[in-house]
This record gives sequence, structure tokens and C-alpha cells, in this order.
Amino acid sequence: MDIKDAIRTIPDHPKPGIMFRDVTTLLADAGAFRRTVDALVAPLAGAKIDKVAGIEARGFILGGAVAHQLSVGFLPVRKKGKLPFTTLAEDYELEYGTDTIEIHVDAAQPGEKVLIVDDLVATGGTAEAAVKLLRRAGADVVGCAFVVDLRDLGGAERLRALGVQVTALVEFAGH
Amino acid sequence: MDIKDAIRTIPDHPKPGIMFRDVTTLLADAGAFRRTVDALVAPLAGAKIDKVAGIEARGFILGGAVAHQLSVGFLPVRKKGKLPFTTLAEDYELEYGTDTIEIHVDAAQPGEKVLIVDDLVATGGTAEAAVKLLRRAGADVVGCAFVVDLRDLGGAERLRALGVQVTALVEFAGH
Repeated sequence: MDIKDAIRTIPDHPKPGIMFRDVTTLLADAGAFRRTVDALVAPLAGAKIDKVAGIEARGFILGGAVAHQLSVGFLPVRKKGKLPFTTLAEDYELEYGTDTIEIHVDAAQPGEKVLIVDDLVATGGTAEAAVKLLRRAGADVVGCAFVVDLRDLGGAERLRALGVQVTALVEFAGH
Repeated sequence: MDIKDAIRTIPDHPKPGIMFRDVTTLLADAGAFRRTVDALVAPLAGAKIDKVAGIEARGFILGGAVAHQLSVGFLPVRKKGKLPFTTLAEDYELEYGTDTIEIHVDAAQPGEKVLIVDDLVATGGTAEAAVKLLRRAGADVVGCAFVVDLRDLGGAERLRALGVQVTALVEFAGH
């Protein structure tokens, strides 16, 4: 199955007017899942990558698979209060209010080349906060890889403006 | 590095007297991560597995890697209210009160052979609820694979009493 066709759209979720792009149907399909992982790493063939950073929670599934494919380590970017050791924290803006993500203070070593993975980029706020966190830890963020880009929300451009290479496998218009 | 040595212990987290077993240091180590995935699937060599079920949130990281290693699909077992499509839900007991996990109603097909993956088994309450959910969906739960077994809490035995094969790579005494 084509990667885009394997994504289920749920209208009016979580609220009216939102077309929710559900990747669980893609992950459940062995062939589509494997082709997705292959496609996420393809643009980075030949690049040195030391670690994959997955963004909680769906980015953990894809990031775990991508780290395994690349034979590198994995570091979790988590919602506030979920990590047990000393953390670095970064706030980012939501439609109403702010939220916070964290990494362990020793999650990345200075100079390590890190690839950020998540299922979807919308406004790019979470991924931008992840880039900032990893740079504060001294890491070199070599790219952000997403399955879905909601391109009208401008997240990919926002990340490219930070000097980060952005890969997205499929695009959807609208929210 | 040995798998057990790659796990960090954080004393008195999240509360006094608890020795928290932190697998993020294991996941960050490329060699230890790969050996962990290999060891999780080794007891199932030759068994037919159609899908891996990962338990939110750390089970997503390991489950994503295990599904990739086995070239099968992945299904998320999530906390209540996180899945966008129609769900099946199962309650389980906590020290105080109850919690609920969910799967999508179409996450597993009748007769599918499913391997449950999580980082750690303590009392086994969450994994038991996952077994029940998957069986309600008609799936055949072929096993539960964990990195850590807190053996004094009896979770592995509780799961074996359900007729499920349990694999755990390392054991720790106490809580």
C-alpha cells in the first residue's frame, strides 16, 4: 500500500473542522511501516548520524524503528515531568497557552549528530523546541524527519529557517 | 556494555524507597539497544508473529524497534483518550484507584498473533489489561517481552497464569 493511502483520516477530530491524520493504520501495515522507515532515512544516506531523538508519543514508535534501522542510539523528547533524571526543559506555544518538553541533561553528547523523528509536523512548535533543547545540550541537529507535513501550517519552513534539513513523506493541505 | 549495566538506577524516584530503573541510558547506547532488541525476539525465533503491541510510552520505543526487526506491523496500547478512532477499553488496578488503557477496535484482526512489548514489568497490571484487550479483539497473544522484571512484584507469574509466554532480559529485586 502507498504510504499516503495507509494513513486514515478522521474528520472532525479532536474538534469540528479538523481532519485528523491517523498513522496507526500505517504502522499496523507491515509493508507500509517498513517502507516508511526506509523513506525517512533515505535522504540521509551517507550522512553521519549518532542518535535518533523521538518526540513523545508517536515519534517514539517511528523513532525507535529508525534508530534500529540506522543501528544508533535513541533519546526520548518527553512531555514535562515524565523523565526520571535531571532534565533540560523548553517551552513552546500552543493555540492557547504554552507547553513544555524535556530531555535528560545527558541525553546527547556535545557534537553528536542527532536526527529528530515524529509522525507529523503541523506548526512545528514542538519540533522547534526539540531543536533548541538538543542544541542547548551541544548536539548537532542534522535533520527532522516526519511522515506527514500539514503544509499550510508552515512547520517545515519554520524548521528550515533554523538551518535544519526537513524531510516529510506525504503532504496534506488544511489542518 | 551489558544490558543490565546499561540501565541507570535512580534512588527514591518517584518517591522515597523506590529504586527507579531508567532504560533511557540503555536506549542511548547503540550497541546495548541493538542487543536488547535481538534478545527480546530471540526466544520467539521460528514462532509466527503478525504484529507487535507496544505499551505507552516506553514500550513504543522498544516495540517500534522490535516490529521493525521482525518486519511486522505495530499497534499502540494507549492511555485513555489518546487514540482518535473507535476503541476497546480495559480498566486495571493501581495502588490507589484504577486506570484505563485502550486499543483501536481494528488494531488486531481475529487470529492475528501478537507480541506485547514494554520496558518493564512490575505488578503486571497494565500488561494483563493489554492481554485482555487483545483477546477481546480476537488476537492470539503469543507472548510478552520486557527488558526488566521487578520479580518481587510478581508480574511475570501473573501473566504466565494467563497462558502467556513471558520473556524478561534482566531482573531486579525489590521495587
